[in-house]
Amino acid sequence: MGTGRLETFADGVFAIAITLLVIEIPHPEVDEHLGRELVDQWPAYLAYVLSFVTIGIIWVNHHALMRHFDRTDRAFLFVNVFFLMCVAFIPFPTALIAEDLGNEIAMFTYGATLFATAVLFNVFWNYGRLRLLRADADMREVRGITRSYIPGVVAYGIAAGASLAYAEVGFVLYSLLAAFYVLSGSLWAGRETG
Amino acid sequence: MGTGRLETFADGVFAIAITLLVIEIPHPEVDEHLGRELVDQWPAYLAYVLSFVTIGIIWVNHHALMRHFDRTDRAFLFVNVFFLMCVAFIPFPTALIAEDLGNEIAMFTYGATLFATAVLFNVFWNYGRLRLLRADADMREVRGITRSYIPGVVAYGIAAGASLAYAEVGFVLYSLLAAFYVLSGSLWAGRETG
Amino acid sequence: MGTGRLETFADGVFAIAITLLVIEIPHPEVDEHLGRELVDQWPAYLAYVLSFVTIGIIWVNHHALMRHFDRTDRAFLFVNVFFLMCVAFIPFPTALIAEDLGNEIAMFTYGATLFATAVLFNVFWNYGRLRLLRADADMREVRGITRSYIPGVVAYGIAAGASLAYAEVGFVLYSLLAAFYVLSGSLWAGRETG
Amino acid sequence: MGTGRLETFADGVFAIAITLLVIEIPHPEVDEHLGRELVDQWPAYLAYVLSFVTIGIIWVNHHALMRHFDRTDRAFLFVNVFFLMCVAFIPFPTALIAEDLGNEIAMFTYGATLFATAVLFNVFWNYGRLRLLRADADMREVRGITRSYIPGVVAYGIAAGASLAYAEVGFVLYSLLAAFYVLSGSLWAGRETG
Repeated sequence: MGTGRLETFADGVFAIAITLLVIEIPHPEVDEHLGRELVDQWPAYLAYVLSFVTIGIIWVNHHALMRHFDRTDRAFLFVNVFFLMCVAFIPFPTALIAEDLGNEIAMFTYGATLFATAVLFNVFWNYGRLRLLRADADMREVRGITRSYIPGVVAYGIAAGASLAYAEVGFVLYSLLAAFYVLSGSLWAGRETG
Repeated sequence: MGTGRLETFADGVFAIAITLLVIEIPHPEVDEHLGRELVDQWPAYLAYVLSFVTIGIIWVNHHALMRHFDRTDRAFLFVNVFFLMCVAFIPFPTALIAEDLGNEIAMFTYGATLFATAVLFNVFWNYGRLRLLRADADMREVRGITRSYIPGVVAYGIAAGASLAYAEVGFVLYSLLAAFYVLSGSLWAGRETG
Repeated sequence: MGTGRLETFADGVFAIAITLLVIEIPHPEVDEHLGRELVDQWPAYLAYVLSFVTIGIIWVNHHALMRHFDRTDRAFLFVNVFFLMCVAFIPFPTALIAEDLGNEIAMFTYGATLFATAVLFNVFWNYGRLRLLRADADMREVRGITRSYIPGVVAYGIAAGASLAYAEVGFVLYSLLAAFYVLSGSLWAGRETG
Repeated sequence: MGTGRLETFADGVFAIAITLLVIEIPHPEVDEHLGRELVDQWPAYLAYVLSFVTIGIIWVNHHALMRHFDRTDRAFLFVNVFFLMCVAFIPFPTALIAEDLGNEIAMFTYGATLFATAVLFNVFWNYGRLRLLRADADMREVRGITRSYIPGVVAYGIAAGASLAYAEVGFVLYSLLAAFYVLSGSLWAGRETG
């Protein structure tokens, strides 16, 4: 089996999960106090931006990783389904932190979801790496990817744990992780195409 | 007509139906009782996982099956529409069982939807098999698929019936069926690529 | 410009509009009266089936029609956007008739939406036919399509008008039109591939 | 990396954002006053049409622009994510203006979203133009696009500012801008294919 429909389906789930985030932002009443009410729900916008960028990063990584495979098998399709089950769940804890960035349980639930997503992403990559690698795959790049995905699991685990003590610390850590992935990914892109 | 747009459209419906499942999970209030309220709605997470995996299985099977066809006709497109009508309906009974895994009528409605989906899936396969098979299709594999899809109809029929007596038994049966399809599909994949 | 992205985008809008229909079905409370409440909201299921099949028909026709074009231009892309604006609106009147199949205004709104869709579909086809036809298009088939799309506009206009007098008559007419298109399309497919 | 998945993903987000607009239209109660209530919420339909056409225009432009690139890099994927973050946000201010076309804050929020989208669209184009242009790109056309996208930023900035003084003026300006883009795009298409 080719990888085409796996990518179409995954892109569909990514696109829908990322676009559903907007319907979790509460609609204040449209009256003379609208300005203040819009400003007062700033945590909802931060949560929207964080989750949008985070899902965007996962999509970019999924995209980058699929280039190393030229076929799929059924077990891989199912690993992909379990991975997407985590991604599609992200709007739920996003809605929780959107209401209150200071709630430890909400922030932990958010981090636990990203942690599970990172674990499944590693399973996805390693299954594919061991069984579906294209014949002409660059083994140095493959080893580099394998190494670079482990710290993400650890980092999201630490950030989720920290959320239980101080919710705001968790939020800052998730944001720093997202910023790190965007910047390092972009710099790496610069080297790649330079 | 080629099969491209049928697959794009079907993948879209699968991706949306599977991603909409998350918006059926109730949002508890974000306050000091959040932890307990999140734990208390565990049936909603079980329902999410069961429906996500079940729709994922249907997608994998649809994917596997389309490989044997290299064209479509209008009647096939309409059979596909009726089949997708069942798939797209799954979020509705999922929301019902998410509220109470012990309600017989909710569990039966869930099973009846999966039963209807299995019936339509057989119609879809058999129509395609009789009219649209590619010239080089492996007839042994084709006969194997035809045989392997019948028991699904029977099994979902029995599970739906059992739900009317004991809702929890129905839930266990649906879960075992999903687990069976994931494991047998994955093992089969092992043989296929080994 | 090729037709690829127009079709991807249109298939996305079709797939989302058709899958959103399920979230318009009200969720009764899950208690001992669930069975009766599920039965009592039968108009919602009829509305779901009618709109699902109707959008499915429009998708099949869009699919069939795009085969005659091998390029697009900007005006065609915008005509497609206005056409999709009608298709994407269908869930709104569907929710209205789902509540009461006997309300004349609801049924007329439903019919007016399908009428507008049929008008835009004709504009879409005729613009494409006059400017973007592929060099090897079968002109007899093209003329056949042109003729066969006009009666749809008239039929939906009449059905919408009849809804203002008797809502149920409107519903029956929309259903007969859908059944006619599914059956005639499928029979035509039989000839096409026979 | 090819541009295929970027386009699939972007088309998915465009298709979902545009189709979600319909669920922001309030559902009046279906009773004997339905006709009046449907008429009374005319601002919701205007907001639906304006946002649908506006997102449609952005999709057409994204489509036109991608023709000049034949590869992507990671930074470009992330710029695309930030651009789509603005597009996917559009349903939120649409729901605000749908309730009251005369509220200055609502209309300004709408315009600020379109302004941000226009800014990101320019970043997207200029990043791609400087780094990812295909070898055979028509430089006169490229310069024409670069020039033609700047005024959009200015125009949406002015329209958003005007909304703060008179909400209705903002609405008229957004509508004129949409009409201008549809008409000029279509005329340009006429020249292109004529």
